Amino acid sequence: MAKKLWGGRFSKKTDPLVEEFTKSIQIDKTLAQYDCWGSILHINVLKKAKLLTPEEHEKLEKGLNAILKYIESDEFEKDPSLNDFEDIHSYIQNLIEKKVPGIALKLHTCRSRNDQVVFCTKLYSLDHIKVVQKFIMEVDKSLLKLAVDNAGVNIPGYTHLQHAMPINLFEYFYAYHEMLNRDLKRLSNIYKTINLTLGAGALAGTFIKSKEYNSAVKLLLLSKDKIPVKPTTSAIDTVSDRDFVIEILSAISILGLHLSRLSEDLIIWSTKEFDFIEIDESFCTGSSLMPQKRNPDVLELIRGYAGKLYGNLISVLVTMKGLPLTYNRDMQLDKEPLFNSFTIIQQELKVLSHLLLKIKFNETAIKKQLSDECLYATDISDFLVKNGVTFKEAHTIVGQLISYKLKHGISLLPENEMEKGITDEELKKFHPLLSIEVMKRIIDPYISVKNKKSLRRKLRIMTKEYIHHK
Amino acid sequence: MAKKLWGGRFSKKTDPLVEEFTKSIQIDKTLAQYDCWGSILHINVLKKAKLLTPEEHEKLEKGLNAILKYIESDEFEKDPSLNDFEDIHSYIQNLIEKKVPGIALKLHTCRSRNDQVVFCTKLYSLDHIKVVQKFIMEVDKSLLKLAVDNAGVNIPGYTHLQHAMPINLFEYFYAYHEMLNRDLKRLSNIYKTINLTLGAGALAGTFIKSKEYNSAVKLLLLSKDKIPVKPTTSAIDTVSDRDFVIEILSAISILGLHLSRLSEDLIIWSTKEFDFIEIDESFCTGSSLMPQKRNPDVLELIRGYAGKLYGNLISVLVTMKGLPLTYNRDMQLDKEPLFNSFTIIQQELKVLSHLLLKIKFNETAIKKQLSDECLYATDISDFLVKNGVTFKEAHTIVGQLISYKLKHGISLLPENEMEKGITDEELKKFHPLLSIEVMKRIIDPYISVKNKKSLRRKLRIMTKEYIHHK
Amino acid sequence: MAKKLWGGRFSKKTDPLVEEFTKSIQIDKTLAQYDCWGSILHINVLKKAKLLTPEEHEKLEKGLNAILKYIESDEFEKDPSLNDFEDIHSYIQNLIEKKVPGIALKLHTCRSRNDQVVFCTKLYSLDHIKVVQKFIMEVDKSLLKLAVDNAGVNIPGYTHLQHAMPINLFEYFYAYHEMLNRDLKRLSNIYKTINLTLGAGALAGTFIKSKEYNSAVKLLLLSKDKIPVKPTTSAIDTVSDRDFVIEILSAISILGLHLSRLSEDLIIWSTKEFDFIEIDESFCTGSSLMPQKRNPDVLELIRGYAGKLYGNLISVLVTMKGLPLTYNRDMQLDKEPLFNSFTIIQQELKVLSHLLLKIKFNETAIKKQLSDECLYATDISDFLVKNGVTFKEAHTIVGQLISYKLKHGISLLPENEMEKGITDEELKKFHPLLSIEVMKRIIDPYISVKNKKSLRRKLRIMTKEYIHHK
Amino acid sequence: MAKKLWGGRFSKKTDPLVEEFTKSIQIDKTLAQYDCWGSILHINVLKKAKLLTPEEHEKLEKGLNAILKYIESDEFEKDPSLNDFEDIHSYIQNLIEKKVPGIALKLHTCRSRNDQVVFCTKLYSLDHIKVVQKFIMEVDKSLLKLAVDNAGVNIPGYTHLQHAMPINLFEYFYAYHEMLNRDLKRLSNIYKTINLTLGAGALAGTFIKSKEYNSAVKLLLLSKDKIPVKPTTSAIDTVSDRDFVIEILSAISILGLHLSRLSEDLIIWSTKEFDFIEIDESFCTGSSLMPQKRNPDVLELIRGYAGKLYGNLISVLVTMKGLPLTYNRDMQLDKEPLFNSFTIIQQELKVLSHLLLKIKFNETAIKKQLSDECLYATDISDFLVKNGVTFKEAHTIVGQLISYKLKHGISLLPENEMEKGITDEELKKFHPLLSIEVMKRIIDPYISVKNKKSLRRKLRIMTKEYIHHK
Repeated sequence: MAKKLWGGRFSKKTDPLVEEFTKSIQIDKTLAQYDCWGSILHINVLKKAKLLTPEEHEKLEKGLNAILKYIESDEFEKDPSLNDFEDIHSYIQNLIEKKVPGIALKLHTCRSRNDQVVFCTKLYSLDHIKVVQKFIMEVDKSLLKLAVDNAGVNIPGYTHLQHAMPINLFEYFYAYHEMLNRDLKRLSNIYKTINLTLGAGALAGTFIKSKEYNSAVKLLLLSKDKIPVKPTTSAIDTVSDRDFVIEILSAISILGLHLSRLSEDLIIWSTKEFDFIEIDESFCTGSSLMPQKRNPDVLELIRGYAGKLYGNLISVLVTMKGLPLTYNRDMQLDKEPLFNSFTIIQQELKVLSHLLLKIKFNETAIKKQLSDECLYATDISDFLVKNGVTFKEAHTIVGQLISYKLKHGISLLPENEMEKGITDEELKKFHPLLSIEVMKRIIDPYISVKNKKSLRRKLRIMTKEYIHHK
Repeated sequence: MAKKLWGGRFSKKTDPLVEEFTKSIQIDKTLAQYDCWGSILHINVLKKAKLLTPEEHEKLEKGLNAILKYIESDEFEKDPSLNDFEDIHSYIQNLIEKKVPGIALKLHTCRSRNDQVVFCTKLYSLDHIKVVQKFIMEVDKSLLKLAVDNAGVNIPGYTHLQHAMPINLFEYFYAYHEMLNRDLKRLSNIYKTINLTLGAGALAGTFIKSKEYNSAVKLLLLSKDKIPVKPTTSAIDTVSDRDFVIEILSAISILGLHLSRLSEDLIIWSTKEFDFIEIDESFCTGSSLMPQKRNPDVLELIRGYAGKLYGNLISVLVTMKGLPLTYNRDMQLDKEPLFNSFTIIQQELKVLSHLLLKIKFNETAIKKQLSDECLYATDISDFLVKNGVTFKEAHTIVGQLISYKLKHGISLLPENEMEKGITDEELKKFHPLLSIEVMKRIIDPYISVKNKKSLRRKLRIMTKEYIHHK
Repeated sequence: MAKKLWGGRFSKKTDPLVEEFTKSIQIDKTLAQYDCWGSILHINVLKKAKLLTPEEHEKLEKGLNAILKYIESDEFEKDPSLNDFEDIHSYIQNLIEKKVPGIALKLHTCRSRNDQVVFCTKLYSLDHIKVVQKFIMEVDKSLLKLAVDNAGVNIPGYTHLQHAMPINLFEYFYAYHEMLNRDLKRLSNIYKTINLTLGAGALAGTFIKSKEYNSAVKLLLLSKDKIPVKPTTSAIDTVSDRDFVIEILSAISILGLHLSRLSEDLIIWSTKEFDFIEIDESFCTGSSLMPQKRNPDVLELIRGYAGKLYGNLISVLVTMKGLPLTYNRDMQLDKEPLFNSFTIIQQELKVLSHLLLKIKFNETAIKKQLSDECLYATDISDFLVKNGVTFKEAHTIVGQLISYKLKHGISLLPENEMEKGITDEELKKFHPLLSIEVMKRIIDPYISVKNKKSLRRKLRIMTKEYIHHK
Repeated sequence: MAKKLWGGRFSKKTDPLVEEFTKSIQIDKTLAQYDCWGSILHINVLKKAKLLTPEEHEKLEKGLNAILKYIESDEFEKDPSLNDFEDIHSYIQNLIEKKVPGIALKLHTCRSRNDQVVFCTKLYSLDHIKVVQKFIMEVDKSLLKLAVDNAGVNIPGYTHLQHAMPINLFEYFYAYHEMLNRDLKRLSNIYKTINLTLGAGALAGTFIKSKEYNSAVKLLLLSKDKIPVKPTTSAIDTVSDRDFVIEILSAISILGLHLSRLSEDLIIWSTKEFDFIEIDESFCTGSSLMPQKRNPDVLELIRGYAGKLYGNLISVLVTMKGLPLTYNRDMQLDKEPLFNSFTIIQQELKVLSHLLLKIKFNETAIKKQLSDECLYATDISDFLVKNGVTFKEAHTIVGQLISYKLKHGISLLPENEMEKGITDEELKKFHPLLSIEVMKRIIDPYISVKNKKSLRRKLRIMTKEYIHHK
């Protein structure tokens, strides 16, 4: 194992089993670039505090920038020596010591790994929240396109997976738009509360004055976002806190939950029995044994990954439970779940935004289901209520009418190829206002959908929103 | 079983096993008052939409207000007929039908239980978020009082539960103040995003126009908070969404995590071996077998309840996973975990705010631990760095000095009753700048704490904050 | 608050908030009878150890038996004084002190609440495992009846919720029989490893000799099961261990998972679109708004409860994580999840065993789906393989044949009312062995099912098993 | 992407995003050898069923054995082409096709990936259960060595982390021995119920007769264990079931819980304040900032990993919840958590078995704590009870005596350097039987421990067990 950032007091060598067990570089190498950015800020502080001369600072900065470039290259990932280091911070320290020998030994002045690690992880998180938000907006764009393009298509709406009332596909996809908007907002709230600070030291602060930190760091430019950096207001909290990790994992879990529900619906809609949609062949997979299969594996994996996302959330919650202040090594285990959830959700969103755009609706199969007259029971009841029947009476009357219809296998409309039609006489027995003519004006998906006037928004507005989105 | 809100179509009676299995009144009776408030808003809408005459409206409103009063009374909780109803909504409907026969049958016009339930649960949540926030502020006040009152007390700071550096008790409790502030903020964010709407119907909206909803409902006064109510923008989302439940359960889990950590620290500090604090006898419990015991049961339960809070979070996440849109009966199971987490966290906060104020610090035991010279290793290293030694060198030198001290069982200060003292000659071997005089100026908890200048805040400001809090 | 089992050392009264927060009687009153049985054993030990005279023992035993009877009565549950006690153990101690004043003060000799609580909870668990097993066997009986009664019905088998190959309903239900058998076995394994012991004291054992325990307790009769009771082999482990609770919660979670899957299938099968089954009206519920609804709420709740069962499991796992030995008050929180999971799963099994028996299969709708020729793709491929084509070739040929069929909208059989038929010429292009005559012999659900000869079991045997079950 | 095991029907190419999202080779490459063993069994079946000639069989077997060797080599892990394949099964199929062109195309006859994957995963599990059991026995050996070697050392026993009664270190470590024995038993039970079968096909079985499977496969030699292989009794259950994965993850979670508790104790014992033990330097790590630190990182990680182990359990439980039968792609996500939990627990056990052997006890610090006279309160009470005082009286008397002692700061023994001693007169006020002479015979850890006679086992027996273990 390569040199560690600690060791002076120890007379014995670390047992190789311990090195193997405690090392984290296979996971935290993800933080490489964020570690460099943190170091670049830190040397600004050291210069300000006169712990580095301008010349020393310049050399270190140059060295760190060179390392940043190296990290972006292919070589870094493939460096076989990576595995010799305890963590990415030791690895980068080793690189900088080679580049700027001597001076690099000053780099860790007034800096602890506890503070360094939490800084990097926050920076990583800020960066990846933005990425996830971008991907959410991509899926949202696809959803709104589906909504607008299929605004002419009505489908049965389901409660309890049973036919309830006709709804418009616009409404359907718009519901997911609302969910994703909450997801965006939730992530924004987290983004705003991630407090990027320096100066916590190991737990008690450092001897550099807060105003020196203040003047040296202020803003960090991440991608195009300016992120404020400040000296910490509580060193103990800074090194002990993993709230931001848990909040992110919770937000991603909820987002994953939304996508699991969308997937479930699409999986059910693409069964032979529903046959409402066709998922493009390029987004399906086949079977090694059954030549006919075209399976919605992508959607199944999105549904299934909810488990992993929840597992990641619970794992950090558990690890943090009941830990005494301040830093404990247990907290190192926050990173793998965090990185993993970010990776999964990015993949889900990316593939989904494309899959959605290739869905085709089978209007014939949908229309067949819309001909289920039970879907219009509430509309019949509404008709009676509007004509003065109390709601409870209307509900009972229509319930009995539906029972009658089903028991006798007749249509509430004029005869069709499957069923004979109900008569005006029969209808009147339920309520004098009912007649076949009335039924014809009620049992129609377009009318049913049009009559739902309580919704605040207008299709027109939504379309604009969608176009604006583009 | 008493009358249900549905039933017209059914020719068979519900199996008693099904009634037993599906009923929820033992849980959702908690929603009683919120259900009434929702109904009061709903009849405003019905009046506006001319589905109720002003007279009918007045009678219903009077009836509902009477029920509200009844619910606040003891009688309600003890009503043996409660258990005959499927849920609290049927129970209240039954009450109103008795009070305003006939007219009450119009109450459910354009309203579905799906919408009604989600409305009540949101209203309950808004109300209880405020309560939890109030309790958090109580605990915070206790914490700040402890912080300010004990700002003269230093203790060893711990990382890995090992002595790290001296810290001030003010710093310690202030860290929890920061955590609780994040908790408050997190709950505020949730409060703001809970969207209280009407008009979703079962899933597709109702025939009442959105502008009629708008003019009829607008604001709801909950305690002293004005809560905007609007017609829904997505009926499907409204009846399908339980994000707010999960967000609350997540926020309470994080809050419970914070309290579990505080409890763990206090439990450890009240061991015979640490002996840093004494928890007041009135906040301890004894043993049925061991007469000497004084156990910190309250803190142990707070620590242990983290499990239940996490369990509640995961249970709703799991229940919602992969559910097809829109409403499914599974979603009824959101309430018990929600109510339970609110109850637990309120109890935890209430008892803790009192327990904290009665903690006594045992400064003798603390001072004994502060005499551990290893706590000042970083201060010695800082001294060398300030005098031009590179950080890494300084770290190594002090590491070796500490090893030497421990190996030979000597003090870095002049001789004391336990150990003989190090000599200047010995010190110089490690670094020429070191001497007993220097050590005397370094090995002191007050100086150590004073030298940590990186922290942004000032004790003075905090004290003000605390006083303001009062 | 009534007298506690401890208190001698304390000079201050317990704060009422603490009493409220720490009391557990609302939950642990479930243990009442088990507590009595434990006490009856314990006084045997005290008699053997000569700490009770035979007369004292007789009086106490009589008293405890009277309390046992009282507990089984309605009065117990309704006793308003229940809530004045800390826990059920204090409550029962209070009862016995009233019944046998003076002597009852000896009851807690050599006994700690830690040991008492774990004993009761184990006894409760043993009792309820048996109950759950009985209910599982009821559901299993229903499943086997469904399997045998519908052994003549084939349905499409699904992978990825897509048509795969025809299967027999017997096979389908038999799969759940296998799952439930694993559940039974899993619970039996737990039952066998629950170690019912006495003599742990608070953590260190008692001064009564193990052989006196041994001769005094040996066997406990629970229902009709003889349960061995022994002096503990590790007092520390006895009072610290909650493995049995977690194992039970895990086994119930897996069982709940199985039932959630069965429910999901039945929910999907009872959609209008699948229409494979009809769930009896007496096992459905309706809607307050939509008069036509008949919803499978029971199945939805069973599916949804998986969340709660998992939550209960995770909550105890979390609570126990990282607890120092031996007993900590956190462990009190094991009971509510344990009791709750037992209650839920018993309800699920009970209602399900009845619901299953009332399912009706709609063979017309099923047959329509069985006419999907894609279901027989593997059978065509098998035909080719049996005639010497390599598997991979056969897979490719049939894949292309299916593509061709779908693209041209033709049947692989002679013309029917929907599609025109493929010709021998067309078939030969795919493989010379294929012909319409061959297709007719392949595309048949009965033949398809009959040709799967790899399964170890025989319908005949299963039927016997079912009859034996009866 | 390299050739897939399916594809014939598809006219479009799979979207690269889909390939990326659905591929699993980076995870399931762990199954490589188990896949080969499964194939070797499968070709036996094909030979028996005359679907392979003896010559074809021989060639395939040779090819598969060569692949097995290759997999054990370094080359396999480094093969850059690995990443071009969807999963390990396609990769191995590709290898065998290169080695035995033509014939290899028959390999998938009557075999589905669903069946193949579950077979491999079961075989992997059986193999790794044995490995974990071996490691548990190593830790157990270390525990028993600690127990036997330190059987002369008494320590304060804790409940609520407060001094309770003296216990022997033997008892302490023996408690963990009991826990680990339950872990072993639990894993054995799972091992026995893992049903290794062939012949499920995709979900419906295959056309090969079960007796041909039976005579072809029977036993599989894994390491030195003979594992029975049988044709499946339920093809549907075989491809749908992941119970064994969940059971393993649950058992590993409980094992991880035990280790988290042991770690917590050792972390607390190695604080400066307790100072009961010293963990060998080679099993500690240092700090980058604080030169004096020697942190118990290994133990902290073991404690923290409980979170990950629980997370893995919950993730598979969630993924499987509510999945319709039979196979769904979601189920692919069982493998990463399973492999991860096995890896973590093996590492934990390995490092712990060594760390334990190097723990040193600091008897001076321990003795100081044993001089806490409160530890003997129960012994004083026992003395009174043995002399005829009722238990409740004795409990109260001793409670008051302890209060008196603490209030006046006196010893219950003759004067020592810290406290003055109690007098016989004072003692008699509490109970006439009490005296300083009596106290001297009671307040002694060896006597206290010796007097606990209820425990079933004998040190002698345990020592034998330990030696037998060696």
